[in-house]
Amino acid sequence: MSSAFKSILDTIYEAIDFVKWPDGNSKFFINPGKNTNGVKPIKERCVCFLRNKGWELEKPMDLGSRISPGPIDAVLSIPHYYDFAFEWETGNISSSHRALNKMALGLITKALSGGILVVPSRELYYHLTDRIGNYAELEPYFPMWKTLNIEGILAVIEIEHDALSSSVPKIPKGIDGRALV
Amino acid sequence: MSSAFKSILDTIYEAIDFVKWPDGNSKFFINPGKNTNGVKPIKERCVCFLRNKGWELEKPMDLGSRISPGPIDAVLSIPHYYDFAFEWETGNISSSHRALNKMALGLITKALSGGILVVPSRELYYHLTDRIGNYAELEPYFPMWKTLNIEGILAVIEIEHDALSSSVPKIPKGIDGRALV
Repeated sequence: MSSAFKSILDTIYEAIDFVKWPDGNSKFFINPGKNTNGVKPIKERCVCFLRNKGWELEKPMDLGSRISPGPIDAVLSIPHYYDFAFEWETGNISSSHRALNKMALGLITKALSGGILVVPSRELYYHLTDRIGNYAELEPYFPMWKTLNIEGILAVIEIEHDALSSSVPKIPKGIDGRALV
Repeated sequence: MSSAFKSILDTIYEAIDFVKWPDGNSKFFINPGKNTNGVKPIKERCVCFLRNKGWELEKPMDLGSRISPGPIDAVLSIPHYYDFAFEWETGNISSSHRALNKMALGLITKALSGGILVVPSRELYYHLTDRIGNYAELEPYFPMWKTLNIEGILAVIEIEHDALSSSVPKIPKGIDGRALV
């Protein structure tokens, strides 16, 4: 991997590690319970970190088609090279398929040089919004994207809580979450 | 294309053509209006036709992974060869991505010899359940699946109504539709 890519991945790991719950804590706790916690507030803390590092949020990817794919959560412009994409799953497992297909297409069309999708582990998934995309459900499909044999990076990062704690607040669901950022 | 595949495609075209609205009509009419009509009843008429031709409905695809992909709408077992898959979209555009990924994965792993996904045209889409997957929104991604360069058939069939008519009943939405089959 080139040093440029290594530096990008370092920033992404830093952005993920920046997300704690509750805010200001040194770890990411989750209030346990089936489908108890929302997902958007944790994503927004991560992409805000990236924005502060110069990434552009909600950037459309132009493929020259009549109907373009939806915007990408965070995009880093690399001088004299192709953009690097970052997505944090907040939808269901089908949505994770579309996110990876979108980034794969970007790599094929040279709109992107790389793409990373962040999804919760199966263990964290249990405590989040019902049917959110998760690593264990997506993993069986990895051979398909590997068959594409494309240049560049297409990867999925699995995230998980540090610990359970019933004394921390639940992560708000839906638009409630936006008010917190 | 082999004569076996040609015969399968002929059956699929026949199954699609079998779907009329209202039932017993010689054409497929649609009662016009944004997001006015359901989608499951028309799918069910099509897959029932396939079942009568020996296809198995809701067949799981075993990929040997801990979590397997969801079942396939209709599958034809081909003696001494791999199954042929048929899916009729009733979910949103992300769901169409997962359906094509599932069939592509089946082709890669030799669980399948071919797969067909049926989706409405952009014109028909307007009159159906909100946000249903449609051809125009999926087409920009075709280069990704083409890059897989897999053996076998992976195709999308675009369907459309024959004519609009405000005198035909609306196609029922949700579980109401099941009662009609």
